[in-house]
Amino acid sequence: MHVAALHTPSQIQLNQHGQLKHFLTIEGLSKQTLTKILDTAHSFINDQNQLVTTPILQGHTVMNLFFENSTRTRTTFEAAAKRLSANVLNIDIARSSTSKGETLRDTLWNLEAMAADIFVVRHSSSGAAHFIAETVCPNIAIINAGDGRHAHPTQAMLDMLTIRRETKKPFEQLSVAIIGDIKHSRVARSDVSALQTLGCKDIRVIAPNTLLPFGFDEYGEGVRLFNNMEQGIRDCDVIITLRIQNERIHSPALSSQSEFYKLFGLNQARLALAKPDCIVMHPGPMNRGVEIDSSIADGPQSVILHQVTNGIAVRMAVLALSMQGQLQEKGLIEAISV
Amino acid sequence: MHVAALHTPSQIQLNQHGQLKHFLTIEGLSKQTLTKILDTAHSFINDQNQLVTTPILQGHTVMNLFFENSTRTRTTFEAAAKRLSANVLNIDIARSSTSKGETLRDTLWNLEAMAADIFVVRHSSSGAAHFIAETVCPNIAIINAGDGRHAHPTQAMLDMLTIRRETKKPFEQLSVAIIGDIKHSRVARSDVSALQTLGCKDIRVIAPNTLLPFGFDEYGEGVRLFNNMEQGIRDCDVIITLRIQNERIHSPALSSQSEFYKLFGLNQARLALAKPDCIVMHPGPMNRGVEIDSSIADGPQSVILHQVTNGIAVRMAVLALSMQGQLQEKGLIEAISV
Amino acid sequence: MHVAALHTPSQIQLNQHGQLKHFLTIEGLSKQTLTKILDTAHSFINDQNQLVTTPILQGHTVMNLFFENSTRTRTTFEAAAKRLSANVLNIDIARSSTSKGETLRDTLWNLEAMAADIFVVRHSSSGAAHFIAETVCPNIAIINAGDGRHAHPTQAMLDMLTIRRETKKPFEQLSVAIIGDIKHSRVARSDVSALQTLGCKDIRVIAPNTLLPFGFDEYGEGVRLFNNMEQGIRDCDVIITLRIQNERIHSPALSSQSEFYKLFGLNQARLALAKPDCIVMHPGPMNRGVEIDSSIADGPQSVILHQVTNGIAVRMAVLALSMQGQLQEKGLIEAISV
Repeated sequence: MHVAALHTPSQIQLNQHGQLKHFLTIEGLSKQTLTKILDTAHSFINDQNQLVTTPILQGHTVMNLFFENSTRTRTTFEAAAKRLSANVLNIDIARSSTSKGETLRDTLWNLEAMAADIFVVRHSSSGAAHFIAETVCPNIAIINAGDGRHAHPTQAMLDMLTIRRETKKPFEQLSVAIIGDIKHSRVARSDVSALQTLGCKDIRVIAPNTLLPFGFDEYGEGVRLFNNMEQGIRDCDVIITLRIQNERIHSPALSSQSEFYKLFGLNQARLALAKPDCIVMHPGPMNRGVEIDSSIADGPQSVILHQVTNGIAVRMAVLALSMQGQLQEKGLIEAISV
Repeated sequence: MHVAALHTPSQIQLNQHGQLKHFLTIEGLSKQTLTKILDTAHSFINDQNQLVTTPILQGHTVMNLFFENSTRTRTTFEAAAKRLSANVLNIDIARSSTSKGETLRDTLWNLEAMAADIFVVRHSSSGAAHFIAETVCPNIAIINAGDGRHAHPTQAMLDMLTIRRETKKPFEQLSVAIIGDIKHSRVARSDVSALQTLGCKDIRVIAPNTLLPFGFDEYGEGVRLFNNMEQGIRDCDVIITLRIQNERIHSPALSSQSEFYKLFGLNQARLALAKPDCIVMHPGPMNRGVEIDSSIADGPQSVILHQVTNGIAVRMAVLALSMQGQLQEKGLIEAISV
Repeated sequence: MHVAALHTPSQIQLNQHGQLKHFLTIEGLSKQTLTKILDTAHSFINDQNQLVTTPILQGHTVMNLFFENSTRTRTTFEAAAKRLSANVLNIDIARSSTSKGETLRDTLWNLEAMAADIFVVRHSSSGAAHFIAETVCPNIAIINAGDGRHAHPTQAMLDMLTIRRETKKPFEQLSVAIIGDIKHSRVARSDVSALQTLGCKDIRVIAPNTLLPFGFDEYGEGVRLFNNMEQGIRDCDVIITLRIQNERIHSPALSSQSEFYKLFGLNQARLALAKPDCIVMHPGPMNRGVEIDSSIADGPQSVILHQVTNGIAVRMAVLALSMQGQLQEKGLIEAISV
């Protein structure tokens, strides 16, 4: 766990014109860039609130490289790439690589030489996507679909799009609470960073001490820690509940599901402490009755399923923008047009 | 085994204009609706007897949810959806769902929120597709690709299309024999129901007593039972042989493959008892020398491979019609146009 | 091992006009046909050295039937077919066939009846693709994606395209060395045959005796055997290093990796014996430090990644040409137009 890494700016994501050419982490991206992603994502949703299909990536090839299995996230990227009319190839990367004694670098170079334009990378090691973008395939648009405990930047951006679309308020005026397993969550890290960049002044991180990272005070500007649910949640505009990973339960960090629900589960009494129009979010998959009461998950303040739809729009946006940033860097197009 | 369930009409398949919006079971559908499916399927086959490719589902997303593995059926739906220019996503539903403690309902809602338009559902439990259409995702077009021992309605409709195209006679004038493991066959149930609705007056069910369902007399109008192959097959226009599932062999229901072939296998002597232009069908995969003699499977009266091609056309039809029925219900189109 | 089989001409690959309708093996194809494949492949690479996307196979269906797993080769065919705008279906052929007691012939006929136009076949048995084309599905364009130890004809053609594009010399003037496990390599067989047909007069096969096939002298015209790396490599224009299969190591044929590298590995001292502009090729996946030194694999004479890109172009060419040859045979088009 290196909280300091959260603050390492990552300029390799940008081309010589300052435009996105990879999408690896929220850190180091400007408010302008994040807003461009949100605007682009929004443009892929029509007036009937439906995702559009466009020819933006026609003739381009997206390869999904999921070193770590995640059917759900892979499906969202596949759906997003197909809505952009890309060719999509799901590579059985675990099998195709090391099994034959080939180096990972050679495997990736081979895939690049098969005329891939974009790699969507999911890996259990922090910094894997960053490493590929920096040292192996800088001319392929690399999209980070989750790496280790570090970053899950498309999840953060879909959360931001959801907050923007649902609250209809500027980020500067919002109070946002993030509840649960902060320590092991790639979502929490990326969300805090995106909220800070977009100007949110009141971010509350709520968790038992055992589920908070060390060095928490390094989170920086606008972030406060709460061990007490009732205090943390008061007058919030947005509540983000996090998933308790099954493997944490019955570990020293967490005595039981029911114990967690009793102290930190989102129930009606606690939700009543937030603002009346407070929205409730969850990255999924949900443990109903652990992080969140079922009546809230299915209730009028829940925007959990809107997050999923916004997730397709955000993935369309980072795929399209990163591809255009690559083409612009190579002099093949003059300006970003999406 | 609930034979009574066969006769439960299922009006949830139709929208407010009486048009198909899900395709779950043959039961409860009118002759007019079945004929519409057959006409639409036929329209997807051109004068050179080839399947066409059309943009009808362009921009729409079909998700294959095969809780029970069936490579063959999944492939036919994937081929059909691609010929309609849909985006097709094969979801590893067994892995993506319960493994993370998420409820099935939440998994399905998530997939819906990924902007799915159609779910193709295969499940080992009778009524699974019906349950999803009725209580989980009524706004997604649900296509039943086989559930438990109950229904396999696209197989029934491809059998009907094959009978119509090959015999070129009205169903009212046909004698149809169905031979084999009636008790465990989802095909038999759906075929009998479709034949009855389309007006067939002479349906003969031929099987040893151990492979007949209880309560057989509830099958209703036009259906007769035969324990004797030679009697049942006489003067038929159509013979449908069913697959003997491997797991039935050496069970109390069936002493041996050779015993079955001896008593109920379709051989040349028996086929000679049917009408000279009788056609022979089988849903596949075939056990040659068990249900059917190889010389008949490959002979001039066999239309077994035509069934497969008709199966793509029928799946194209139910995908296209159900999608249009959903859009019509939502007021997004005025009339069904395929 | 039947070296004689290398010389069996295979006229079933050609239609009545002498045009390709399957692509099974290099043997029996004329210089004119191989040149047509190379020209067509070349036409799919634009002036910026990028693969094009074209509608040539729009509305046609390509099925990948990989009886033997090869993620890499399957991916290249999938990428190629999608660039030609075909519908691509990856069939889990191992599972869909024998598991249900169906004959392979019936499985293939079923897939054909699902309106497949092209089968890409990979099988561990020599002659499998040939068998399918000759006796099971002659009206489907069959593309051999590697069979047993016999043929890997698309690999050979991508090697030829790479030699042509990189050396810019006629094959008649080139000296080509092939180094390594000749005995077990489907690549070596196909490469030698293609080089001979294209007019190469100086082909050198370099290997320890244990990795040479029996009956080597039957290789025929223009081929010489070398047990000594330094002698074999001298003044070459092209060096093709072959992969040592992991399963050969520690077998009686090969004492150790380091022993092989010492005697037959391509290092800088040996490469210096070839012509100064000699190109270095490898079919992948590479064992760095076994067949080839890393500095050469990544050095200025290596064209290994160009081979991969050329592989997509060559696969596009054989898919497009074989499809057109089938359509021409059936009278559906008059002439090959790609």
